[in-house]
Amino acid sequence: MSSLYLPETPWPVKDAKGLHLISSLTPNGRKVHILLEELKQAYGLEWTTSLIDIDTLEQKKEWFLRINPNGRIPVLIDNAKQPPHAVMESSAELMYLVNTIDKDHIFWFSDPIQQSEALQWVIFWHASGQPNQGQYNFFRRNDSEESRFAAQRFKSEVLRIYRVLEDHLSGRYTGTRREYLAGDGTGKYSIADINAWPWIRNLRSIGLGDDHLTALPSLAQWVDRIAQRPAVVRGLGEWYDEDVHPELLVSS
Amino acid sequence: MSSLYLPETPWPVKDAKGLHLISSLTPNGRKVHILLEELKQAYGLEWTTSLIDIDTLEQKKEWFLRINPNGRIPVLIDNAKQPPHAVMESSAELMYLVNTIDKDHIFWFSDPIQQSEALQWVIFWHASGQPNQGQYNFFRRNDSEESRFAAQRFKSEVLRIYRVLEDHLSGRYTGTRREYLAGDGTGKYSIADINAWPWIRNLRSIGLGDDHLTALPSLAQWVDRIAQRPAVVRGLGEWYDEDVHPELLVSS
Repeated sequence: MSSLYLPETPWPVKDAKGLHLISSLTPNGRKVHILLEELKQAYGLEWTTSLIDIDTLEQKKEWFLRINPNGRIPVLIDNAKQPPHAVMESSAELMYLVNTIDKDHIFWFSDPIQQSEALQWVIFWHASGQPNQGQYNFFRRNDSEESRFAAQRFKSEVLRIYRVLEDHLSGRYTGTRREYLAGDGTGKYSIADINAWPWIRNLRSIGLGDDHLTALPSLAQWVDRIAQRPAVVRGLGEWYDEDVHPELLVSS
Repeated sequence: MSSLYLPETPWPVKDAKGLHLISSLTPNGRKVHILLEELKQAYGLEWTTSLIDIDTLEQKKEWFLRINPNGRIPVLIDNAKQPPHAVMESSAELMYLVNTIDKDHIFWFSDPIQQSEALQWVIFWHASGQPNQGQYNFFRRNDSEESRFAAQRFKSEVLRIYRVLEDHLSGRYTGTRREYLAGDGTGKYSIADINAWPWIRNLRSIGLGDDHLTALPSLAQWVDRIAQRPAVVRGLGEWYDEDVHPELLVSS
């Protein structure tokens, strides 16, 4: 048996054949759900899913840490590889899926320069956007005197990053308005968008203020444009909800 | 003229041929300096360098934002491409350099599974380690009552992430001790290491406490192992220091 699985690893995980997802309804989970649903529609991709109740810290147990030593969802395991190949970090999971499944580069690029451009926006969001928005969420919800200074700091940084995206989409520096973050011309829907969208889709409800939102029209349109896609709707939804599908929940 | 350059763009930047680096002596700058120095030693790579005084916010001026809309160093510009190709985000710059220069996969991998593994550690550090360590540095230096709660939060997270790296290097879950973050067996020095090392090299001086450091022996050895490399010494050093080489400083 691979060192990836322990005797107490839940059987839906250790007995899975092919591609297996361990996830939960978070923005990072939803990135991967959306791309899986896109690849199902485009290529007929099949996989199995296990859900984790992250409130019980299942993801900090030994069986999970074998699969992802960082103790975070989502995780992908490709059991078609010998030994099974586990992928942590949502951006790296998107990259693994386009590299192994998306042979026609529908959600990625064949040109090295466009690949470089798309990877820059993937990393920009994962390294600059996401950590700041995550901290902003933490400190604004923890609404106490000790959090006020940090909440303001992270709100400012989220707004700065949203303005970088607005400038990019509005063509402020290039003169060309864009529909998507990467790709020639007005761009092409890709994992650069999928990586950021589940976080930014709530931009109207994270307390940024109407005056700030008014200054982000291109970003708001980008949010609405992507929300229309059937695979995006499915990736957000009930198939990944432990309340609707408790039979998918695993624990040791 | 490419829309990348404006009339006020400093001439060492807009007149550069081939590969041009705009940087400063920060951990993110040093990642790219180190890989450039490694590629010089391995392949004879040549490039030119401009330095920015980030304290004057030169990187927030219009000429710089054309090159990197996020207003951060380091930036690489490949003027051999038509139009010139700018690369932002230090991890994406490391990826661009190995993809374009490192034909023998000395600092990267040819096997797709090892590529996936290495990319996971690149993103783990850039998205989880680096933002938390950056915020920890900010809040601990801003030693005031309003920062105390956040400083403690980020210190805990830095320690948690260092322990993830310690577990990985010590082979806690695999039974195999590793010398480097990615690669089969004990691993191979790669951009997964270069991406994280300039941040972690100071682990003994960022106030984590002796008891915590004692629990990170594999990580401390990894720091010392990489510090020995001649290209690493050069990448840290004087050639990228605006005080030693003021002739490399640019401003509009």
